[in-house]
Amino acid sequence: MTHSFDDALTLTVAEAAEGRVRYAGVTPQAYQNMIGPFGGVSAALLAQGMMRSARDGLKLVSITTDFMTGMKDGPYSLSTICHRAGRSTEFWAANIQQADASSPALRATAVFGERRETVEWTEGEMPDAPPPEACEAFVPPRPWAEHIAIRPCINADIFNATSTRNALWVKFTDARPLDDVALVCLADTPTPRVFFIVHGFTVLSTISMTVYLHASDADLAEAGSDWVMIEANAGRGGGGFYDQHARIWSRSGKLLATTQQMVWYKAEKV
Amino acid sequence: MTHSFDDALTLTVAEAAEGRVRYAGVTPQAYQNMIGPFGGVSAALLAQGMMRSARDGLKLVSITTDFMTGMKDGPYSLSTICHRAGRSTEFWAANIQQADASSPALRATAVFGERRETVEWTEGEMPDAPPPEACEAFVPPRPWAEHIAIRPCINADIFNATSTRNALWVKFTDARPLDDVALVCLADTPTPRVFFIVHGFTVLSTISMTVYLHASDADLAEAGSDWVMIEANAGRGGGGFYDQHARIWSRSGKLLATTQQMVWYKAEKV
Repeated sequence: MTHSFDDALTLTVAEAAEGRVRYAGVTPQAYQNMIGPFGGVSAALLAQGMMRSARDGLKLVSITTDFMTGMKDGPYSLSTICHRAGRSTEFWAANIQQADASSPALRATAVFGERRETVEWTEGEMPDAPPPEACEAFVPPRPWAEHIAIRPCINADIFNATSTRNALWVKFTDARPLDDVALVCLADTPTPRVFFIVHGFTVLSTISMTVYLHASDADLAEAGSDWVMIEANAGRGGGGFYDQHARIWSRSGKLLATTQQMVWYKAEKV
Repeated sequence: MTHSFDDALTLTVAEAAEGRVRYAGVTPQAYQNMIGPFGGVSAALLAQGMMRSARDGLKLVSITTDFMTGMKDGPYSLSTICHRAGRSTEFWAANIQQADASSPALRATAVFGERRETVEWTEGEMPDAPPPEACEAFVPPRPWAEHIAIRPCINADIFNATSTRNALWVKFTDARPLDDVALVCLADTPTPRVFFIVHGFTVLSTISMTVYLHASDADLAEAGSDWVMIEANAGRGGGGFYDQHARIWSRSGKLLATTQQMVWYKAEKV
């Protein structure tokens, strides 16, 4: 039996040419959010399409996904195109389009690169926090939250928060080894920052999310299907948009990915 | 006489249709870097093209620029296309292509939005540092550095750095009022993080840079053509790539923009 996340990412080649592939898929039901699939799964879908299109041996380094409109139930086309293939890098773009829609629902750009041995370093450390076993589950009332477990561990209570800086443990509910597509998906799990400001739930929508991938193969193997910690904070909110910045750590303290997003929100001035 | 930065961003409409505009330009000489124009100016050029193409009244919210290959001297085409126009948002893409090149040199995606009154907040504060008047100039030996003044103010000495977290004051050498394209340009001025690790200069190239714009019109007016402070840090370097995260503050302490980039580098393990 395949994992629900891999089921959601199922793509079939519909058409292929040099530097251009079109895949066919069906909007995944298991990971539904408010309107269409959970953002993390949508971004992972585009990542997956581009990873399959890119040259073997190149690794995903960076991906920016723009959420343009909702995805409806039913079939979709995921088109990928190579904008530049260099000796050790490739630049791909992708979008998801549905037959009756006037524009694509999502688009993404990604950079792939050859990983080489270089000087290496990490700045900062995973924050001190209680282990996931000691933290309570937070379950957003949406289908996707049955498949991704979330346990806030720092500044957990949005109703009494004094800052938007927080951290949570996350993993797939059913065990699944961590890889780059999973990191892209989990990057969208932090509780929206504006909830910590208005001390409650409010209407919002991520419009653009970028993920930078750092994990080596050894880091991913070590992380396995265990919990990862995501710490997040905002920069500034105002005029209808705010940014979120986050770092994803393995349980053993490796920095696996960094991610940021711009979010549209509605909460009015009090 | 126009400002050298506005000269560099000069674009002429070559072809226009609904949701698609092609501009003609000439590679700017004043802001040359190692290979082609300084990255900040190239990103500003793409921002400028998309801003001119987007619906009047919408503001630039987010832009991701990918540096795919160098720009040669001479004429170029800057093509913009609207991927989705909603009621209060537009999603544009752009690239810069030169006649004899096999692929575009640069590409970018941007999100534009209507600014509305919402609850607002900023997290953190501008770091304490000596004023620009008390700091020494750092002048990279490249033409662009004649037009953009840089004065490191925190952790200035890469040869004796104990961390990559640093800050610098920047502004256009000749006074020019701050606006969104200028913020996109200045976002690329921080001294490369890997210099603080290897304690010297080394080969590198930004491959992708995202800028989130936060400044209101009032913030920009207040900032005028004065110095802004950019504080920056890295996340993780390894396998040939590292990320940089930065915040741009007005002298009075307003958070004007946040920005991050993924950088390809070569420095080998010692």
